[in-house]
Amino acid sequence: MTDTNRQFVLGKRPEGKPDCDTFELEETEMPDPRHGEVLLRTLYLSVDPYMRGRMRDRDSYADPWDVGDRMAGHVVSEVVESTHDDWQKGEFVFGEGFWSEHSLLDGDDLTPVDTSPENVTLASYLGVLGMPGRTAYFGTLDVLEPDPDDTVAVSGAAGAVGSTVGQIASLAGARVVGFTGSDEKVDYLEDDLGFDAGINYKTTDDYRGALDDAAPNGVDAYFDNVGGPISDTVFAQLNVDARVAICGQIALYNEEGVPTGPRKLPQLIAPRARVEGFLVFDYATRFERATQRLREWVTSGEIQHRESVVEGFGNAPDAFLGLFEGDNIGKQVVKVAEPSES
Amino acid sequence: MTDTNRQFVLGKRPEGKPDCDTFELEETEMPDPRHGEVLLRTLYLSVDPYMRGRMRDRDSYADPWDVGDRMAGHVVSEVVESTHDDWQKGEFVFGEGFWSEHSLLDGDDLTPVDTSPENVTLASYLGVLGMPGRTAYFGTLDVLEPDPDDTVAVSGAAGAVGSTVGQIASLAGARVVGFTGSDEKVDYLEDDLGFDAGINYKTTDDYRGALDDAAPNGVDAYFDNVGGPISDTVFAQLNVDARVAICGQIALYNEEGVPTGPRKLPQLIAPRARVEGFLVFDYATRFERATQRLREWVTSGEIQHRESVVEGFGNAPDAFLGLFEGDNIGKQVVKVAEPSES
Repeated sequence: MTDTNRQFVLGKRPEGKPDCDTFELEETEMPDPRHGEVLLRTLYLSVDPYMRGRMRDRDSYADPWDVGDRMAGHVVSEVVESTHDDWQKGEFVFGEGFWSEHSLLDGDDLTPVDTSPENVTLASYLGVLGMPGRTAYFGTLDVLEPDPDDTVAVSGAAGAVGSTVGQIASLAGARVVGFTGSDEKVDYLEDDLGFDAGINYKTTDDYRGALDDAAPNGVDAYFDNVGGPISDTVFAQLNVDARVAICGQIALYNEEGVPTGPRKLPQLIAPRARVEGFLVFDYATRFERATQRLREWVTSGEIQHRESVVEGFGNAPDAFLGLFEGDNIGKQVVKVAEPSES
Repeated sequence: MTDTNRQFVLGKRPEGKPDCDTFELEETEMPDPRHGEVLLRTLYLSVDPYMRGRMRDRDSYADPWDVGDRMAGHVVSEVVESTHDDWQKGEFVFGEGFWSEHSLLDGDDLTPVDTSPENVTLASYLGVLGMPGRTAYFGTLDVLEPDPDDTVAVSGAAGAVGSTVGQIASLAGARVVGFTGSDEKVDYLEDDLGFDAGINYKTTDDYRGALDDAAPNGVDAYFDNVGGPISDTVFAQLNVDARVAICGQIALYNEEGVPTGPRKLPQLIAPRARVEGFLVFDYATRFERATQRLREWVTSGEIQHRESVVEGFGNAPDAFLGLFEGDNIGKQVVKVAEPSES
């Protein structure tokens, strides 16, 4: 084992789009675990759009990072050394770690990673069996509550959250329409995930017409990861008693100042639409049950998942920047290391 | 009794602000009641902001009027002649009538008007005991659900709906802040209605600062009658688990095309705010109970009400146009005639 650890810190706050200068690679000494801590070797780390918010100097649900702070994120890791009774060297765990090759975490905050069930991989714990899967689960079942007669629209439909939302809504019997950014992704939605229709928003000029075709009976529920013009289109097509879950607004995350657009409040009255911002952390007491159900669906093949893997710790910034270009299909992860041979 | 009846019809669809040409006064023959119909003499008629929507050639919850259609609206009337067993000459009734001196309505669709309880007037059946009162009742108790720890903000606070919303929220123990358009109205809110603070949005440059002062702990619930810059300010101050009821957007009703403004969806995520468009008609099965409770509050003096009365049938258009200037305190009505001496 080497004596040094590499980690990314916030190099400077981005204005508009982040770039390579946003991140700074540091070498530090390898930390020593004690008092219940566990030293972990990162195998996969997660890059997520919400991290853009933490780069701003503004209070929100996740504390802002200061320049020089370590970038935090979910990791799937292997235990290198443990001072905690629950964990032993060589085990795989999931936790809130850092963009670093090694992390020292409290053993109380780790959960086990089991890849023995069918279709379950190490990386899937950062996607369909991790926060994105839970976000899709609660956002769909608790906020949207789709019925078999409903049409459900999803933006960011081929991403980690959106792809799972659409499949859960399909399992509930709804017609599912997804907005996504390439023809390859449209094929993925329609051929692999069972979406009823996919719309490539990058090649479609007439969003309204495309949505009319894909959702001829209007939209009863909308899961929004993106915001901006896609949401403008969907809001104009909401049916009576429509539900909207606002999960993310990636189209707007890199805007400086307050973005403007069509006012939506007048559009809510006639359909008596309900729009809810939601955060998965509010459902923490139900995470275990959600993960169990998601694992069952994954194992049975009822829910498909895919991870876009960028290889190499040093490429974590590129993986993150690619989220805003729509480079990923399914969950974007960074593969940092191979598991040890056991 | 004269043999002719006067009524207003839609003269032409307004572009932007309606004006006198929007309305056309017609004389018609006095209708004859038969088959359960009741001939009514209008005493008070209601002018309401939502009527602006019916002047547009666009489907919504209320059917659009065609040019030449009679303007419809709620009336408090006296029975002139009845072919319906429930109603007798000389009784006072409430119903969905027309901007006309006389209306012929189905006796099944009328409800009784009783002015014997303390503080209850004929005109109050168009305000606190009519649709505006019910709108306030369900919007506050069912959509906002204020707690004693909450701060509730109301736009259009001195209007028929807003003034009742604020008082119901006060009865629930909440801190209540109202946006309104004159110092006289601010005094009315604070001195007569028990609002904790009123903000004159026409003389305040710094909405944000004024709301910070009036609602130092942020806003937990917002009842929106107005939209536009007032709502932009309130949305930026929403607390975790905030509820927003979208009842009206009078600031935008006269805009042609789709109004634009700051995007609000990104602001919903961190506070997990819930925004609902709502229509009082969805609560029709509970109208009787709501009116009973409102009447109790009015009779006991716990809820104050006021009507702004424009005298004379011919001035109905002016009364309507005044809504968009904020001329009214409390419910705007038109007094068409005195009750017969009995």
